[in-house]
Amino acid sequence: MAFLVQKFGGTSVGDLDRIRNVAAKVKAARDQGHRIVVVVSAMGGETNRLVDLARSVNPQPLPREMDVLLATGEQVSIALLAIALDTLGCPARSYTGAQVRITTNNAHTKARITNIDKDPIMADLAAGKVVVVAGFQGISDDGNITTLGRGGSDTTAVALASALGADECQIFTDVEGVYTSDPRVVPEARLLNEITHEEMLELASLGAKVLQIRAVEFASKYNVPLRVLSTFVEGEGTHIIPEEQLMEQPLISGVAFNRDEAKITICGVPDKPGIAFSVLGPIAEANIEVDMIVQNVSADDKTDMTFTVHRNDFDTAMTLLEKTARDMDAEEVTGDNRIAKISLVGVGMRSHAGIASKMFETLAAESINIQMISTSEIKISVVVDEKYMELGVRALHAAFGLNESAAQA
Amino acid sequence: MAFLVQKFGGTSVGDLDRIRNVAAKVKAARDQGHRIVVVVSAMGGETNRLVDLARSVNPQPLPREMDVLLATGEQVSIALLAIALDTLGCPARSYTGAQVRITTNNAHTKARITNIDKDPIMADLAAGKVVVVAGFQGISDDGNITTLGRGGSDTTAVALASALGADECQIFTDVEGVYTSDPRVVPEARLLNEITHEEMLELASLGAKVLQIRAVEFASKYNVPLRVLSTFVEGEGTHIIPEEQLMEQPLISGVAFNRDEAKITICGVPDKPGIAFSVLGPIAEANIEVDMIVQNVSADDKTDMTFTVHRNDFDTAMTLLEKTARDMDAEEVTGDNRIAKISLVGVGMRSHAGIASKMFETLAAESINIQMISTSEIKISVVVDEKYMELGVRALHAAFGLNESAAQA
Repeated sequence: MAFLVQKFGGTSVGDLDRIRNVAAKVKAARDQGHRIVVVVSAMGGETNRLVDLARSVNPQPLPREMDVLLATGEQVSIALLAIALDTLGCPARSYTGAQVRITTNNAHTKARITNIDKDPIMADLAAGKVVVVAGFQGISDDGNITTLGRGGSDTTAVALASALGADECQIFTDVEGVYTSDPRVVPEARLLNEITHEEMLELASLGAKVLQIRAVEFASKYNVPLRVLSTFVEGEGTHIIPEEQLMEQPLISGVAFNRDEAKITICGVPDKPGIAFSVLGPIAEANIEVDMIVQNVSADDKTDMTFTVHRNDFDTAMTLLEKTARDMDAEEVTGDNRIAKISLVGVGMRSHAGIASKMFETLAAESINIQMISTSEIKISVVVDEKYMELGVRALHAAFGLNESAAQA
Repeated sequence: MAFLVQKFGGTSVGDLDRIRNVAAKVKAARDQGHRIVVVVSAMGGETNRLVDLARSVNPQPLPREMDVLLATGEQVSIALLAIALDTLGCPARSYTGAQVRITTNNAHTKARITNIDKDPIMADLAAGKVVVVAGFQGISDDGNITTLGRGGSDTTAVALASALGADECQIFTDVEGVYTSDPRVVPEARLLNEITHEEMLELASLGAKVLQIRAVEFASKYNVPLRVLSTFVEGEGTHIIPEEQLMEQPLISGVAFNRDEAKITICGVPDKPGIAFSVLGPIAEANIEVDMIVQNVSADDKTDMTFTVHRNDFDTAMTLLEKTARDMDAEEVTGDNRIAKISLVGVGMRSHAGIASKMFETLAAESINIQMISTSEIKISVVVDEKYMELGVRALHAAFGLNESAAQA
């Protein structure tokens, strides 16, 4: 008999049949004696519909009113789920973010949770009810409706689990858990039984978008046991835990990839202090995020600098940089938006030498040229020509023993 | 420079173009120097969509959760209207029922307003903002979202106008005001400049459904000056006022009609005390509302009783009454669901004799047989064969000088 926070995303409550399915799952867990708090997102597509409505009226709608509008999405879901639970004979009670008093700061459309009033929820649980809470939303101290930004329902769930002292926060989604790589690219990809918060953060930020980054950060900070599992397929899913609780400690947990980026190089820049700021300052001012940055050793008092930006920002960044190049008297600006980033992630690499060289050797054996390299404590990323992405990911997945057959051997 | 509460119904905010149109109207009034509080309904069709969703999950959804669900309809409208006003350069701020603290009792789906906190609204108005309030909804003392029942947005508007001490409550709708009869049946029907609360109540309950009855009652009780006017056509609309403020005092204000009823007669009932209860008790127990009731003088210790019910309840009521007739040893039960009710309404008839006889004379001249008669202080209703309804309404409209040409003469 555990105390569980179960979160169901937009796909899981995408239509009435799916809401009934969620109700049946929740009831089954309650019938086993668990105390359950459910967090739900808006029905799939609803948030986009509401955003489109507002943008049709004004491309830059008032953030305060945008939050009033968007909060209706989850409010519909909690009511329908509570009705579906009641229909199955499972007593339930819904709460909007404002009603459960999920207090946030006043940063509309990207608010941060500051407090949760746990008393009404604990009272309902003690009375045998399932508590259904609207994800993604809260209320500011001065009574304004706020939202937490895209994917904020994950954050609501983790914050509730932390505030209530739940035994586990279960994120139900449309995949069975976290895989060693994307099964669409690597058919041999394995479901991971467990993964550390840190690894999950690296994988999430690299495009394996199972969980919202802020939710993982929150779970890590407040030590909330987290589990990702499927709404539609029975299974244990993936347990996301602090590193010290890892049972097995594989070298590499997964191979992530990302083809959302583009690469820009400025060549022949006179090498003097402050060039990184001169090059990247205008980019930052245009609100363009830069991911990898590489600067070559200088030759003849000139140097090259290469960085990556989101592919959508490529044209804007190129235009900005061409102006910068003229101002700085640089030789040339080149760009390439047909690149992909491949990353190895694993806490095991902290204590193992030779991971990087094995990665480079594996790619070389497939004749894949590495264009950029960037490393962190538990990650090595390389940029390659986009057309080699799948080949590179599969080769690395096999080389580091992640294939299903390899694991069973 | 007046202080106005303006209410726009579902048709008036039915799509984004119409919301923009409402924003333009509100801004124009504000630009004239008026202080404006706007009350809006859910976008046309949205409430029905939400009801259908809930009923698909459970034909009898939990009332508390139903209110959580339905309240989202107006919440979408207030956000979009506030965004549209801002887009026109008119500062605006939206409030849900809970935010503005429209406190109600706990009668979910048909709650009654108990209090309104006017301070935040007055502060926003003082700051030059237009205040946009969600109609139809409130919050109970214990923090539950409540709704006021169908058409409740009218009640919200009148209650706000009363609580805030507004100069006028303007109900914008898709008709230009209150007419002497339905222009689809009587092409000569005239728009009334003014009408009393009592007359409006009789007309509204008789099917001239421009305004919600509760809103008119509220306006009457708290002396709120009310005006019905069109969202789509410029005009002064109809002023709904206390009787003592009437400028002109016509004999008859309008001719209403209704073909939603059916007539049932039980014949040859042994005449003894308690028969009305014996006949109508089972009908009331089945939650069927009875409108007109007529009992004939008794002959040979037997009597007849006739009453009308909503046409939808006709079959159920007939079945119930046939059983009652057997139990009571009555002779026969007959029914007719092809009837229509025609009513003359006017405060002037209080002080004028001969209205009824002129009504019967007019109908007789058209060879229309009267099946039932019922009177109140300011209304005379007759039941006739449905096929004579239009003819009867037009004849009465002309006979009592309501035709446009007559009025101009």
